[in-house]
Amino acid sequence: MKIAIIGLGLIGGSMAKAIKENTSHTVYGYDKNDTVEKKALLLGAIDEVLTDEILSQCDLTLIALYPQAAVDFIRKKQEIFKKSSIVLDCCGVKRIVCRQVEPIALKQGFVFIGGHPMAGLEHSGFDHAKKALFKDASMILTPTKGSIQDVEKVKDLFTAIGFTNIQIATPEEHDQMIAFTSQLAHVVSSAYIKSPAAMKHQGFSAGSYKDLTRVAKLNEDMWTELFLDNPEFLTEEIDGIARRLEEYSRAIKDRDAETLRALLKDGREKKAFIDGEIF
Amino acid sequence: MKIAIIGLGLIGGSMAKAIKENTSHTVYGYDKNDTVEKKALLLGAIDEVLTDEILSQCDLTLIALYPQAAVDFIRKKQEIFKKSSIVLDCCGVKRIVCRQVEPIALKQGFVFIGGHPMAGLEHSGFDHAKKALFKDASMILTPTKGSIQDVEKVKDLFTAIGFTNIQIATPEEHDQMIAFTSQLAHVVSSAYIKSPAAMKHQGFSAGSYKDLTRVAKLNEDMWTELFLDNPEFLTEEIDGIARRLEEYSRAIKDRDAETLRALLKDGREKKAFIDGEIF
Repeated sequence: MKIAIIGLGLIGGSMAKAIKENTSHTVYGYDKNDTVEKKALLLGAIDEVLTDEILSQCDLTLIALYPQAAVDFIRKKQEIFKKSSIVLDCCGVKRIVCRQVEPIALKQGFVFIGGHPMAGLEHSGFDHAKKALFKDASMILTPTKGSIQDVEKVKDLFTAIGFTNIQIATPEEHDQMIAFTSQLAHVVSSAYIKSPAAMKHQGFSAGSYKDLTRVAKLNEDMWTELFLDNPEFLTEEIDGIARRLEEYSRAIKDRDAETLRALLKDGREKKAFIDGEIF
Repeated sequence: MKIAIIGLGLIGGSMAKAIKENTSHTVYGYDKNDTVEKKALLLGAIDEVLTDEILSQCDLTLIALYPQAAVDFIRKKQEIFKKSSIVLDCCGVKRIVCRQVEPIALKQGFVFIGGHPMAGLEHSGFDHAKKALFKDASMILTPTKGSIQDVEKVKDLFTAIGFTNIQIATPEEHDQMIAFTSQLAHVVSSAYIKSPAAMKHQGFSAGSYKDLTRVAKLNEDMWTELFLDNPEFLTEEIDGIARRLEEYSRAIKDRDAETLRALLKDGREKKAFIDGEIF
């Protein structure tokens, strides 16, 4: 296949490196920063810099931009994508992208599949991209049109570059679950680190603290856009945990050991159930 | 030295194994469950089962019980501890223990040092105890009386069994910091897992979700006691994060990108500062 990759940041750059490493597909790359394109070329992460002419021949276009930029790119290039080729975005929110892109795809005769590679780092940009980023990761696909063969085609590609878990979901299911598993984690981690006690904790640092604050180190531009593209599901999660936290606080203030123990037991059991340890 | 270890659970059992592995001290162990004592003896984690007579000859007594049980044990055996010997508890809260034990130590002529080994597992009991549990861990000591030589003596022991960071704090400083670095983490993790979305997240599981919910798998009896021994500092932390979470929720509901970005940026910068990446 001829594969175009739009945006050679952490995700796009890693896709390029992983595809070159693990498959014999030809990779064409585009980045708004031409120094990045040159670096990708020099390092062999891409075979050639992408042009509109090449794009019109590509069988698969992977778009690794922020959501609005991804939609804008597809809108701008809609007449250039090869008919029946697949266009797949890698954005962390799916409804807002799919909703806008699907009518364009239908009109122009290309196949659009929403995608979300569940992989990341606390760093961004091509310099941190690595061919093993997707090893054992999950890829969520939100295909709503297109044939099973098309989905199989991208599934094979993603499996070849390291993903071990390919999930199919609707854009809505995706956005609801991601609000809980990823977006809420970033909000909580960010809120956690801002305790006045944090500034003097050196040396007391426990493993639990490290886990709870790891993702506070985030790219605020990207996450602001992702959060504002998923406001209902995310605020439902934030308000939910804030409400639940108050239950613990209340039980402790009341010195109510029985309630506190029950709250903790419930959490332990839910965690064990979700992790598949009890049924 | 002759070392007595009271309570051969995860912490006491690991102390026993680590001391036997790394030093030539003699270890005597006591557990309320005599099957555990026999197992510890068979596995060579202790040299002998502890008796009152042996306790009266020990140079150091490590108490690895829950806080109330630790205080009760010391009160009961106060006349047996060897004069000038060191008694050190391993409880996760320090004011409530130190406050009660220090007058007893003064009266009976033994040296009491509060201790908190910052190590643990999601499992408890002797069967999970391991000699490497304290590798690269922090040990917090809260000595308020006693000589520098006594503190040096326990410091040398803890360094020999793997601790790489020995911190000295007042019991109050300890309890405030632990409320933030450890207790709050357990409360947040427990509250996090209870989202209604959690039950259907399988396959979407991101690394951030895993980190945020790891310590939800806790021993509710132990943590209920620890939380209720530190209610003011802990509820201050819980209420603080709940309040901060509302700021994010408000900004998202208002579609206020500027405020949201500033909240996230502040968290990222605080995290980087605390981790020593910016100054």
